[in-house]
Amino acid sequence: MQDVKALIFDVFGTVVDWRTGVARESERILAPLGYTLNWLEFADAWRAEYQPGMEEVRTGRIPFSRLDVIHRRMLERIRPRFGLEKVEEAVLEDLNLAWHRLDGWPDATEGLRRLRSRYLLAPCSNGNISLMVDLARRNDFRWDAILGAEVARDYKPKPVVYLTAAESFGLKPAQVMMVAAHSNDLEAATGCGLRTAHVAQVNEFGPSTGEPGPTVSVDVAASSFLDLAAKLGV
Amino acid sequence: MQDVKALIFDVFGTVVDWRTGVARESERILAPLGYTLNWLEFADAWRAEYQPGMEEVRTGRIPFSRLDVIHRRMLERIRPRFGLEKVEEAVLEDLNLAWHRLDGWPDATEGLRRLRSRYLLAPCSNGNISLMVDLARRNDFRWDAILGAEVARDYKPKPVVYLTAAESFGLKPAQVMMVAAHSNDLEAATGCGLRTAHVAQVNEFGPSTGEPGPTVSVDVAASSFLDLAAKLGV
Repeated sequence: MQDVKALIFDVFGTVVDWRTGVARESERILAPLGYTLNWLEFADAWRAEYQPGMEEVRTGRIPFSRLDVIHRRMLERIRPRFGLEKVEEAVLEDLNLAWHRLDGWPDATEGLRRLRSRYLLAPCSNGNISLMVDLARRNDFRWDAILGAEVARDYKPKPVVYLTAAESFGLKPAQVMMVAAHSNDLEAATGCGLRTAHVAQVNEFGPSTGEPGPTVSVDVAASSFLDLAAKLGV
Repeated sequence: MQDVKALIFDVFGTVVDWRTGVARESERILAPLGYTLNWLEFADAWRAEYQPGMEEVRTGRIPFSRLDVIHRRMLERIRPRFGLEKVEEAVLEDLNLAWHRLDGWPDATEGLRRLRSRYLLAPCSNGNISLMVDLARRNDFRWDAILGAEVARDYKPKPVVYLTAAESFGLKPAQVMMVAAHSNDLEAATGCGLRTAHVAQVNEFGPSTGEPGPTVSVDVAASSFLDLAAKLGV
């Protein structure tokens, strides 16, 4: 554990609250046009297309596309179900950027600030670079670099994404700790030789829906970012 | 010019002073071992291998290698000339990291801080990500992302490096301004449709050796980072 020099983070659900953020932004954009959806249900439906959308890239069926592009394809799939067939192109483009305007979980900014005093920090998200940049500006996340899918040109949980993040920092996998609220992400990182920390975010899909703790073996299990900082001694 | 959303920066010679930094670090590491080189001459000789080292990647003769790897190959080429054949591997590895321990030109940190109030900022350097990360930590450069050669997997002045930087920010080339002290870098960026700013760093290779102004057409010509900030109105 003393060898760990960098922490890399899952972002959607771990660092930021995508669900209420996408619901809020969708309502802000679509309600003035007369739409009255169940906004949380809409956010959930959009997110439900996430794994199938990335799977096309992971299997090599389509070339790597940034998550912004995949988010838009996902949106196209659910539009008819929510009666959004007639929404104009400029509005859809703006709506697609809902994912760039999410808020961190309450202690994320302060937790990252403390962790930065000892570790290099980067997102290792499936989100693209500009999406991560916009979230960082909005929430005052101070990353050392933006790593993840766009740099590796493939999607988690494929090993190349975790390994490219470690290599980009010039570190061996064992010198890097993956931080996530999702056990499957941590399991994949462990398989690549990284250290792992689980941060419970129990409200990801609504109150008390997230993993209260890891379901796989991890190096650190924390209840929040501030708890993670405390457990890492910073 | 109002369309510009991001500034991307050449780093070696433009943002940081590689020459006195490499000389200082080389002396710090090698002098205690009894070596008495002309340290500035050593730095110049090392840097002189820079373009040939990258050219092997640019031509496709060898696969993409990070600049740390190329710096090490460059060092191997000049070692005999400076009587460094017997230096141990661990020392050479440390010496190679001299390039990670460079100081910014005097107004770089403050200039970037001001520019950040209006623009997204990233290095678009041939240096690798971890090298840029270390320079940023040392000098308190607050980049939004680390872009450049390692993300594009090729070296400037190849167009893919500038174009990948713009794409990574989700911007069109005309929304991005390349900032450099070297006209050839700016000429290549212009060829890709980017805006350009020349910042004169006249002491790059020693007193009064750098370009006092651009030798190609640019959008902004500045005498320093603070002058650039003033000319961009921030």
